[in-house]
Amino acid sequence: MNYQRFFEEAIDQLHAERRYRIFADLERIAGEFPRAIWRNNGDAKEITVWCSNDYLGMGQHPDVIAAFQHTAGRMGSGAGGTRNISGTNHPLVELEFELADLHRKDSALVFTSGFVSNEAAISTIARLLPNCLILSDELNHSSMIEGVRRSGAEKKVFRHNDVAHLESLLQAAGRERAKLIVFESVYSMDGDIAPIAAIADLAEKYNAMTYIDEVHAVGMYGERGGGITEREGLAHRIDVIEGTLAKAFGTLGGYITGPQAVVDAVRSYAPGFIFTTALPPAIAAAAATSIRHLKNSQSERDAQQRQAAQTKRILAGAGLPVMPSETHIVPILVGDPELCKMASDRLLGKHGIYIQPINYPTVPRGTERLRVTPTPFHSDELINVLKAALAETWDALGIPYASSDKPAVAKSDRVIPLVVPAAGG
Amino acid sequence: MNYQRFFEEAIDQLHAERRYRIFADLERIAGEFPRAIWRNNGDAKEITVWCSNDYLGMGQHPDVIAAFQHTAGRMGSGAGGTRNISGTNHPLVELEFELADLHRKDSALVFTSGFVSNEAAISTIARLLPNCLILSDELNHSSMIEGVRRSGAEKKVFRHNDVAHLESLLQAAGRERAKLIVFESVYSMDGDIAPIAAIADLAEKYNAMTYIDEVHAVGMYGERGGGITEREGLAHRIDVIEGTLAKAFGTLGGYITGPQAVVDAVRSYAPGFIFTTALPPAIAAAAATSIRHLKNSQSERDAQQRQAAQTKRILAGAGLPVMPSETHIVPILVGDPELCKMASDRLLGKHGIYIQPINYPTVPRGTERLRVTPTPFHSDELINVLKAALAETWDALGIPYASSDKPAVAKSDRVIPLVVPAAGG
Repeated sequence: MNYQRFFEEAIDQLHAERRYRIFADLERIAGEFPRAIWRNNGDAKEITVWCSNDYLGMGQHPDVIAAFQHTAGRMGSGAGGTRNISGTNHPLVELEFELADLHRKDSALVFTSGFVSNEAAISTIARLLPNCLILSDELNHSSMIEGVRRSGAEKKVFRHNDVAHLESLLQAAGRERAKLIVFESVYSMDGDIAPIAAIADLAEKYNAMTYIDEVHAVGMYGERGGGITEREGLAHRIDVIEGTLAKAFGTLGGYITGPQAVVDAVRSYAPGFIFTTALPPAIAAAAATSIRHLKNSQSERDAQQRQAAQTKRILAGAGLPVMPSETHIVPILVGDPELCKMASDRLLGKHGIYIQPINYPTVPRGTERLRVTPTPFHSDELINVLKAALAETWDALGIPYASSDKPAVAKSDRVIPLVVPAAGG
Repeated sequence: MNYQRFFEEAIDQLHAERRYRIFADLERIAGEFPRAIWRNNGDAKEITVWCSNDYLGMGQHPDVIAAFQHTAGRMGSGAGGTRNISGTNHPLVELEFELADLHRKDSALVFTSGFVSNEAAISTIARLLPNCLILSDELNHSSMIEGVRRSGAEKKVFRHNDVAHLESLLQAAGRERAKLIVFESVYSMDGDIAPIAAIADLAEKYNAMTYIDEVHAVGMYGERGGGITEREGLAHRIDVIEGTLAKAFGTLGGYITGPQAVVDAVRSYAPGFIFTTALPPAIAAAAATSIRHLKNSQSERDAQQRQAAQTKRILAGAGLPVMPSETHIVPILVGDPELCKMASDRLLGKHGIYIQPINYPTVPRGTERLRVTPTPFHSDELINVLKAALAETWDALGIPYASSDKPAVAKSDRVIPLVVPAAGG
């Protein structure tokens, strides 16, 4: 039994499939977002990040940084324990009030990541319901799949955003069986939006609980940044709304909001919550500052939408294969893993533009893409620089441009990684 | 199907078993550790925390806070993405070098929590080995149990620290089968230490991989804070060493260190790592500062050991039932869940001393306890105040003192929560 061999083989397999990931070593520059320093083989050069999930640039907002620094100065760098063992600091209590208010729910509970919040909440909710059937959108995020799996509950996967399919599954289960529908509002790779109202109607008709992941929407949609459910006036019709503090809010952590008893049960029964050191008070204070700011300020949301639309228009105008998206997410089709990786490398090395390749299994084979996320800080000038760099790269590598008879759409049966996903993230 | 009911019943059950947890709302005071402000029903009063996992008080170290604030000022409040999607910031790269060096291993990988590091690493390692058998100490932490469970691998639990039992299980499996031994160096509830050398001998004899959790030891033991494995010169004989940044190092996050191929495989295959936003650069910089400090400074470790010994001596001298412990952890036996909760409430409300009750299922029924963790900042004066407060509480509630014929030891068959643990943490 040579242990080393198995780990080396697992790595070799990723190399063979062109899925081995090398992380770009970056240094964000607060005040100059989306600029960052990229270190590579002893060199350090300034680049532009076009794939950040700091969607509104709130990670460099002066008030957010000030809250972060000030709270660290007053309370130190860590929480000091789990929530139950001396780790519940007052800024975290205030943050949970802020989050419950954001989604107009009874209660909120903060986790150290969005991944853990989905995994812990979905598994705990489904486990506490007798003989629960989980109905899960086929494109749900890895963290939701892990939550479903860990619950041990029976699961039926419905076709992406397909309410007819969902209804047939609900009907087959009957009104009396416990049922939990888990889905996302904005799907992060295609940028499309779930039919939330129709799903809420079905949940009512068949008496199912609903759980929505709004991580790619909170802060960015709705009058106060409450997500798509707020924008569409549907928050009260969804039982549990999950979100993140690490994307539009610019900090770290995940959360759920919902009815008091549900949130309290997750708080009391989820090992991934109970046995984890709490978020540092400085992070909680920074997140609360960011949320409060975005409850009252519309300018970041407007600017993001404007620059996203502008990016789509300018890139599509240059014939680049921009995939249709209803949101701030702008996918550009490459359609080949090797080319996708080469395009990303060329953009970074030659043009100082950083866009991570998105390959299988995060997206289906044949739909490999670059995923661009314009923020309020991606100016028209930066968009034009991006366009020129992409065009040069497309030409140099011979990547197909958009053509009228072959649209850059590939909405397809994305393969959900059921064993060990290796790309994405 | 009334959903609400099931969650309410789950909560009611905890109340009935006296296991419902109310988190103390605290506000740590940097520079005055272990003092904190406790908020309760509109009141705010200063108290002393005696159950912090900020074991060395590094969360308030001026250099650590300065690194935290300085890096936030330069790079912002968040990482901006997962490790693969623009979230790998340079301070995180430096932190991983620091950690690999700390344990003299090839590589290190940082996670957002110790819980996630155990769960992701154990499950991924065991899954990559064909037909792996996991041998797990019966008192392993919840996060390790989750990792074992998620791996889907066969598991055999060996009696706590019982090398003869472990050997019989290894022998039965044979040399040729893949085997992973998972255990802790310091067990956090009793403060006892694993027979690491004997386990390493067995691993060699039967060709097993070894994985040790050093979260309650790193920073505190060994010449440079490399944990018990460093103190005993055994780090090179253990394949994977897991640790935390959230206890003695005073910040947030968890990590593994080990052979390059193993760490790279976990990096490449663990969903809980891949799909999670990276730690903020400020946290990484603060953690690295803390680790570097403790590599070179022995004074914190000496002071902690001195004050822990002093605490044991003074409390035992007052006849309080101090349970034997080989480490900085000082458990005091109460032996009843209701009394344990009442003692904790009285200490906080009447004496301004915060010590969380530790009840089943974190410890076996009948061994409910207060778990005291003296740090370098718990002065002799504070220890004497603690002694008086405990004595008053013991008298008022009629909790048994230590007696020579009935020692305050209860090393027993702790029940490992196999379904949904509800206390602890």
